[in-house]
Amino acid sequence: MAFPGHTTLLFCVLLLTISGARGSDPELTKDFSVPPGVDASKLDGNFFTYTGFRGGVSTTPGETGSKKATVTEFPALDGLGISFFLMYFAPGGVLPPHLHPRGSKLIYMIQGTLTVGFMDSNHKLYNSTLEEGDLYVVPKALVHYMANLEGDKETKVIFAFSSSNPGSIRLPENLFGSNIPAKVLEKSFGVSGKVIEQLEAPYH
Amino acid sequence: MAFPGHTTLLFCVLLLTISGARGSDPELTKDFSVPPGVDASKLDGNFFTYTGFRGGVSTTPGETGSKKATVTEFPALDGLGISFFLMYFAPGGVLPPHLHPRGSKLIYMIQGTLTVGFMDSNHKLYNSTLEEGDLYVVPKALVHYMANLEGDKETKVIFAFSSSNPGSIRLPENLFGSNIPAKVLEKSFGVSGKVIEQLEAPYH
Amino acid sequence: MAFPGHTTLLFCVLLLTISGARGSDPELTKDFSVPPGVDASKLDGNFFTYTGFRGGVSTTPGETGSKKATVTEFPALDGLGISFFLMYFAPGGVLPPHLHPRGSKLIYMIQGTLTVGFMDSNHKLYNSTLEEGDLYVVPKALVHYMANLEGDKETKVIFAFSSSNPGSIRLPENLFGSNIPAKVLEKSFGVSGKVIEQLEAPYH
Amino acid sequence: MAFPGHTTLLFCVLLLTISGARGSDPELTKDFSVPPGVDASKLDGNFFTYTGFRGGVSTTPGETGSKKATVTEFPALDGLGISFFLMYFAPGGVLPPHLHPRGSKLIYMIQGTLTVGFMDSNHKLYNSTLEEGDLYVVPKALVHYMANLEGDKETKVIFAFSSSNPGSIRLPENLFGSNIPAKVLEKSFGVSGKVIEQLEAPYH
Amino acid sequence: MAFPGHTTLLFCVLLLTISGARGSDPELTKDFSVPPGVDASKLDGNFFTYTGFRGGVSTTPGETGSKKATVTEFPALDGLGISFFLMYFAPGGVLPPHLHPRGSKLIYMIQGTLTVGFMDSNHKLYNSTLEEGDLYVVPKALVHYMANLEGDKETKVIFAFSSSNPGSIRLPENLFGSNIPAKVLEKSFGVSGKVIEQLEAPYH
Amino acid sequence: MAFPGHTTLLFCVLLLTISGARGSDPELTKDFSVPPGVDASKLDGNFFTYTGFRGGVSTTPGETGSKKATVTEFPALDGLGISFFLMYFAPGGVLPPHLHPRGSKLIYMIQGTLTVGFMDSNHKLYNSTLEEGDLYVVPKALVHYMANLEGDKETKVIFAFSSSNPGSIRLPENLFGSNIPAKVLEKSFGVSGKVIEQLEAPYH
Repeated sequence: MAFPGHTTLLFCVLLLTISGARGSDPELTKDFSVPPGVDASKLDGNFFTYTGFRGGVSTTPGETGSKKATVTEFPALDGLGISFFLMYFAPGGVLPPHLHPRGSKLIYMIQGTLTVGFMDSNHKLYNSTLEEGDLYVVPKALVHYMANLEGDKETKVIFAFSSSNPGSIRLPENLFGSNIPAKVLEKSFGVSGKVIEQLEAPYH
Repeated sequence: MAFPGHTTLLFCVLLLTISGARGSDPELTKDFSVPPGVDASKLDGNFFTYTGFRGGVSTTPGETGSKKATVTEFPALDGLGISFFLMYFAPGGVLPPHLHPRGSKLIYMIQGTLTVGFMDSNHKLYNSTLEEGDLYVVPKALVHYMANLEGDKETKVIFAFSSSNPGSIRLPENLFGSNIPAKVLEKSFGVSGKVIEQLEAPYH
Repeated sequence: MAFPGHTTLLFCVLLLTISGARGSDPELTKDFSVPPGVDASKLDGNFFTYTGFRGGVSTTPGETGSKKATVTEFPALDGLGISFFLMYFAPGGVLPPHLHPRGSKLIYMIQGTLTVGFMDSNHKLYNSTLEEGDLYVVPKALVHYMANLEGDKETKVIFAFSSSNPGSIRLPENLFGSNIPAKVLEKSFGVSGKVIEQLEAPYH
Repeated sequence: MAFPGHTTLLFCVLLLTISGARGSDPELTKDFSVPPGVDASKLDGNFFTYTGFRGGVSTTPGETGSKKATVTEFPALDGLGISFFLMYFAPGGVLPPHLHPRGSKLIYMIQGTLTVGFMDSNHKLYNSTLEEGDLYVVPKALVHYMANLEGDKETKVIFAFSSSNPGSIRLPENLFGSNIPAKVLEKSFGVSGKVIEQLEAPYH
Repeated sequence: MAFPGHTTLLFCVLLLTISGARGSDPELTKDFSVPPGVDASKLDGNFFTYTGFRGGVSTTPGETGSKKATVTEFPALDGLGISFFLMYFAPGGVLPPHLHPRGSKLIYMIQGTLTVGFMDSNHKLYNSTLEEGDLYVVPKALVHYMANLEGDKETKVIFAFSSSNPGSIRLPENLFGSNIPAKVLEKSFGVSGKVIEQLEAPYH
Repeated sequence: MAFPGHTTLLFCVLLLTISGARGSDPELTKDFSVPPGVDASKLDGNFFTYTGFRGGVSTTPGETGSKKATVTEFPALDGLGISFFLMYFAPGGVLPPHLHPRGSKLIYMIQGTLTVGFMDSNHKLYNSTLEEGDLYVVPKALVHYMANLEGDKETKVIFAFSSSNPGSIRLPENLFGSNIPAKVLEKSFGVSGKVIEQLEAPYH
């Protein structure tokens, strides 16, 4: 075999991508990361530009909508320790309690108002009401929520994360859409099996 | 004043302790950390020994009990990136869904059996049933639960964490005992205000 | 002295602030950092909210204007590994070549267009022209520039950094406003002393 | 060749495993590491469970015995910054002076008593005698020893490390079983060649 | 195919090398890194020895000369967080303003004298004149210069870096040899297009 | 008290220095560290220059001599992740087996020849004989030795470390000068109490 076939190539790239799960944002040993299989000499400014946020996000009434620019969508971020989400909240839109296991989150209010809050390890709430131009920071891995509860204007925000791949754990789904044994949930939340069923209903 | 009074001293120590909130487990620049105000030359092996777990933990029927050895209880751990909890589960005892924002957790089963599980960012459950001698690992900041659901024997476990102060966020309290606006909870969990009130009842 | 006087207090805080120069963004051992002298139990959501960007930035024709939200202006960022600048470019406004020694930079285009570029260690240019909604990333410590060269509209951008205190080194001032010996500059840039004098003129 | 043969596959995996030597425990950019060649979608709770410690460790009289659960034996630990050893000491059993280059060690006494000590950079000894339930911590890369010198009961301990692969350097073997030139050893230890020969005898 | 051919092998190694761009100096999980494709069991002391600096560096009058020992030239450094340059300055030799994006630099004066300086984020100059035996440190990513301006003796120095691959950004080339738009340079440096042309001349 | 007295000042500085034991070399959040109590605005190039190595090191026949430039002697190194030792070996001079718990070590041979070696976790020796100009690297926390065994010329070397405070653990003293129980040493090294007494003799 004079040259590895396409299949071998793809296969190797796949293996490398999988093993690429590990690696660390804080410290690169080159100027930037070149994805496996890419010819570094052919990279130009386009590789460092992401246009996927153009046109914003569409939302349905009462809901939220978002776009992500993490290392998955924007590979140039690999190892650079930063990423963005763009999020729109229609009036009444709620982002349920969730957390990002690998990144702190800094919010910038492009437009509108936002009701926000996070809870620390002692279950103390640090809530705020944000206006256009405001910033709000959520420390890494703490539970937080957001909602456009005031007025009838769409709210637009940028979330910046201190990781190229912060992860998102939405707690309603994580707790009630993941088949945790009913006994555990009943005792944990101090409610009957009927209540747990109601909480699990959206995911069945 | 020829010598700082006790009040000044205590005050400085207090400030230093507070600011000591920052600092990083992964990298020390001395052999170990000496707490502010402590004379390093007088430290001996006792500083590196913790006897607080002697005698184990007492539990009431159907409940769990625990003791911690983090940097708070065992100051020698400062900067060493490791800590322990000792936890006993009476039959029927449940450790509700929770997460540790700053540490992975490695479980060792001293005695008994244990039903365990964690959920990843995609809400996929990785559950297991552990026997005496077994290990189970929960990656950093992912939600997990444990319960002694099988048999009628007390279960005893050691939790080791990859941080001297991993933190613990118990989700029932964090979500329903922290005054998150009712509207946010109702919409997030897709249930009525009545159900939310039931979930909040244990904390009022 | 029964209680430390204000001077002692300020003095201790000063020392702590100075020594606080060290510390590391990537790893906290508490949920968040509490500034020295601050009573953690009195912190609320306001501590995590920054309103200094309200009203945007004012620019003069042909110039740029900016506001910063680093750990200096927004102390809650301490240890969280993230910060923001808000920057407006009047038409013709140029942000001269500069670098951030401690952070990668992710740009979000709120409004307008922007000519951007960074150079790697081999002096290769990665340039781009950004439109509203676009993102562009500059790896840590690499030299980059930006300019509003097209059209006659004000350009508004958010810069997010992977550090709570990224630092900024503007190269024209750093090279020609810092008293580097003339001989060194002449030989380094391959130009006469007259040219160097012209380059230094803005800073004398 | 339409599909890479088994040999190629194994070969690539091998290369990846070898190069996987590098990588960093403190910071993952996914929830957990998936080993190269493994289909992530097929992972379940078994991957995060390790049963190799079941049944404990067998020891011969006067000796020690151990089992390891590092990233080598328990691949799910990769990148999670934690691992365990299970160690039994028969009465009289001694764990010779050794060190772990990549991890601090936290000891939990499951059963029995243990004589322990570590030395700092100034050769000061921090020794202790541990009872059932006690903890003892050894800072990263410092030399320490353990022995079951008191009584006639087997001692059982868990060692937790702040690394998924802490390494172990046993100093008797390292110094006297590794062919360091005799001249160096004689002068270093201030003893005759005869004494060095006695020290090297167990390894020849 | 019973055994992967040379091409496949080279191809895999290439992929691994490229993906090896990521990885982190501060934390290894083995004793040292073995390059992909190398049989660890065959490594000996030669792998950890670098003889490329023997015989020093040759310089032409008025110029500088250097040799590097980074992870590229000396693969054993991978993951160890350290590297060297050997640099000779003929009388009049100048090392133009430059910076190392990934490492602090510690200078040791083997022979001669050296005029040095770095500028901080506020453009303040920290300059010094070094003699044989002196040390001088430049913090990570700050701009600095060096020159043999005094006397007529060759100056010899060792640079040590806190990274296995610190990178080097020479600012004259980076600014004037990289095709930054003329308009940006003119406005940034406050000089005419003619002056910019003179500055760019050495690179055309 | 209108102004804190000297005693208070010294006291606070002392506390800060002690607590400064923690902190991390890899990541600063300012350009450099300013020691507590020092006025940053008065720092100049002298703070970043260390002249303590001038004149080299004096040795007695058959012995070694050294000077250190770690953060203790050269405070500007704080947080920069690098430091130096200067070491001379008279003919026959031996540096006994030792290790640096917090840093890899890169050796530069200024003059002479040197017999060197380190052992990995498997007790495999990686030895070498170095000539003028050669480099040799010892990975973090591994045991190594050096000796000027060939010829009759003084050997001069620079050691660079990947830490501002690498620490040094000399094993002969650590093992035989620290009061490890005789029983432990006898069994560990497989020799009689008499031999252990000989090994301990230099430290009594």
